[in-house]
Amino acid sequence: MNYHFSDKLVNLKPSAIREILKAPSDAETISFAAGNPAPETFPVEQLADLAADIFRNQSTVALQYGVTDGYGPLREAIAKRQKEVYGIGRSIAEGDSYNDTTIIVSGGQQGIELACKAFCNEGDAVICENPTFIGGLNSFRSCGCETIGVPLNEDGIDLAILEETIRKTPNAKLLYLIPTFQNPAGLTSTLENRKGVYEIAKKYGIMIFEDNPYAELRFAGEEIPTIKSMDTEGIVMYGSTFSKILSAGMRVGFVVAPEEVAAKMVVAKQSEDVHTNLFFQILCYKYMTECDLPAHIDFIRDVYRHKCGLMIKGLEEEMPASVTFTRPEGGLFIWVTLPDYVDMTAFIKATMAEKLRVVPGATFNCDVNEPSQCIRLNYSTPSDEQIVEGVKKLGKVVRAFVKE
Amino acid sequence: MNYHFSDKLVNLKPSAIREILKAPSDAETISFAAGNPAPETFPVEQLADLAADIFRNQSTVALQYGVTDGYGPLREAIAKRQKEVYGIGRSIAEGDSYNDTTIIVSGGQQGIELACKAFCNEGDAVICENPTFIGGLNSFRSCGCETIGVPLNEDGIDLAILEETIRKTPNAKLLYLIPTFQNPAGLTSTLENRKGVYEIAKKYGIMIFEDNPYAELRFAGEEIPTIKSMDTEGIVMYGSTFSKILSAGMRVGFVVAPEEVAAKMVVAKQSEDVHTNLFFQILCYKYMTECDLPAHIDFIRDVYRHKCGLMIKGLEEEMPASVTFTRPEGGLFIWVTLPDYVDMTAFIKATMAEKLRVVPGATFNCDVNEPSQCIRLNYSTPSDEQIVEGVKKLGKVVRAFVKE
Repeated sequence: MNYHFSDKLVNLKPSAIREILKAPSDAETISFAAGNPAPETFPVEQLADLAADIFRNQSTVALQYGVTDGYGPLREAIAKRQKEVYGIGRSIAEGDSYNDTTIIVSGGQQGIELACKAFCNEGDAVICENPTFIGGLNSFRSCGCETIGVPLNEDGIDLAILEETIRKTPNAKLLYLIPTFQNPAGLTSTLENRKGVYEIAKKYGIMIFEDNPYAELRFAGEEIPTIKSMDTEGIVMYGSTFSKILSAGMRVGFVVAPEEVAAKMVVAKQSEDVHTNLFFQILCYKYMTECDLPAHIDFIRDVYRHKCGLMIKGLEEEMPASVTFTRPEGGLFIWVTLPDYVDMTAFIKATMAEKLRVVPGATFNCDVNEPSQCIRLNYSTPSDEQIVEGVKKLGKVVRAFVKE
Repeated sequence: MNYHFSDKLVNLKPSAIREILKAPSDAETISFAAGNPAPETFPVEQLADLAADIFRNQSTVALQYGVTDGYGPLREAIAKRQKEVYGIGRSIAEGDSYNDTTIIVSGGQQGIELACKAFCNEGDAVICENPTFIGGLNSFRSCGCETIGVPLNEDGIDLAILEETIRKTPNAKLLYLIPTFQNPAGLTSTLENRKGVYEIAKKYGIMIFEDNPYAELRFAGEEIPTIKSMDTEGIVMYGSTFSKILSAGMRVGFVVAPEEVAAKMVVAKQSEDVHTNLFFQILCYKYMTECDLPAHIDFIRDVYRHKCGLMIKGLEEEMPASVTFTRPEGGLFIWVTLPDYVDMTAFIKATMAEKLRVVPGATFNCDVNEPSQCIRLNYSTPSDEQIVEGVKKLGKVVRAFVKE
């Protein structure tokens, strides 16, 4: 058969990273390519106990159809925590000009896709940081949208270029940002930069989707207020997830958005999957209310502080001065930049030959043909031994390409 | 804020049924409006034991990210059962001209939406039975597609009108059908009708999505081969679900489709939710391989044979001769047709006043403004007592509107 696929999907490729992860590997292969949380950060025993309790006492509800916007008690528990810990969530009752509401989505990914579906027609444009999360880019492409990248500088997205880009792109309907522990660049934008982004979005009437999957993973430095926390006008949708703190495979995330916007996202969600797995929504609720989530998050932060530190230490020892790398205060990734003269295709091939997996930076560009001298390293998935060993392998490859 | 939502969502309303189900009710209210499986058909104790086992022995895999196309062993177990029981699934190794593959989706709903995304651009048309599943209609609308209805006759979709409609609609890219225990009309199309549909689709090169959520719920009569089982050309996508046999709230369904088509659906799925809840995928696999699924399905069929029989008996006693109703051999619904002179708006209001919930037939029309003299009754959700009592309430309302 000669299939005639839709324009939006005909050239869309699966995530290059997910393809890299599928490639054959053996016991010696060390992967810094994943973005998986460390399995030891899943509170397995507590989840098992809570699950047994749900089967005993709530099975009729937990196994039956639920409502699309999500399990009510979980929505409330999240809204309460977001308000108390992050100052997120407006209400008319408190003197704000609009109400925010919290809805449950099937992982952070679905929140991004629903935001695009709510505001963009085919042929519209989404403005993104460049580089950015490939899952976000593919969501926009799968909605038939063009993705337009704005470069990052040391403070965050380049504000002058952002404003110029919005001005030149009348069909830009959405601004997609990961201001905190940006994936892949590891950058956390400054408060001033966030204020600047908000003012520009307000000025041009463009909606923001603030993606914050790593919100809870700060292991150093000071918390910086989210853009959503500044949202007096109701132009920001804020997405996050339980994937990095309880379980990635369960696919439970959430979006905080103005009521009217959330209602549109819910209609779109109903047409995609009716609702998110209800059993695990209840499980998240029980974990939030019956276990010590803040203590668990502290534990996860300790794990990543250690793993990140180990990788940084290795990089400091192994990398020549002309190779730079980020020193993140949270999240899962380190972004390494190689000198301009390095042939990146040959470099990536050499890492593969060395049985090391890293993600080439070009993967994250809005324009896939734009080259990149960067690679993304993940420290959450490999063991301590693999981090030490893998950075040594990387050093060996780098020394073959970089003349100090 | 004056939000500018996308064209496809700006006028899309939530499912009328889900809104009816949210309306306030009290203990006396009897609902025939849902489409939920009977909670007693969920094998709670076995699922609880299997879940405990997964937490003990497979938690690292089950709680971590998985692959988008689904848990391999579950895909294989489903493919095996579909081949053996329903003759579904082609392979070049067996002399067919193409390979089918099975992918896991987040409930039957997602399969429908992905099929539309794969083949339709905004502005394209999807041809459906009229009336049809509102979740399907809303998926197509949320993809920016027009829905065009073709009436049902006693054999299934009207073949002459179907061919005429396809001929007149050059932008029709998908034909959406529920040939077995059709929702809402309860109709099962004949073998001849199915062959006719397949030939027309082949002739005009239009893809078919065969939705078969009630596949396992036949409690009377003879199995009729699916359209997918006739698919020598690779033009049929076949969707089904575990929602009616293990748990609706877990959101695990599957699609059998030609490899090239399934690959496009997987790319689209990756952008929606990365993958389906992995824990419950493993749970389904374990249930299929460690428990007696056929015996469990027999049990479910007994439950619905009894409940359907009870409702039919009540309708035979209560309904005047001018009111007709289907006598389904499976599925979850009975479709009742009232005389032309009945004012349906007043009729539905009267059922509400009587604390009875039914779904007005117009809800299921492709054109929501087209009137309908029908109502849909569900017998799986109410208890036996509620079925008996509810049909009596219905009889009382009908007698107030229908002059024999």
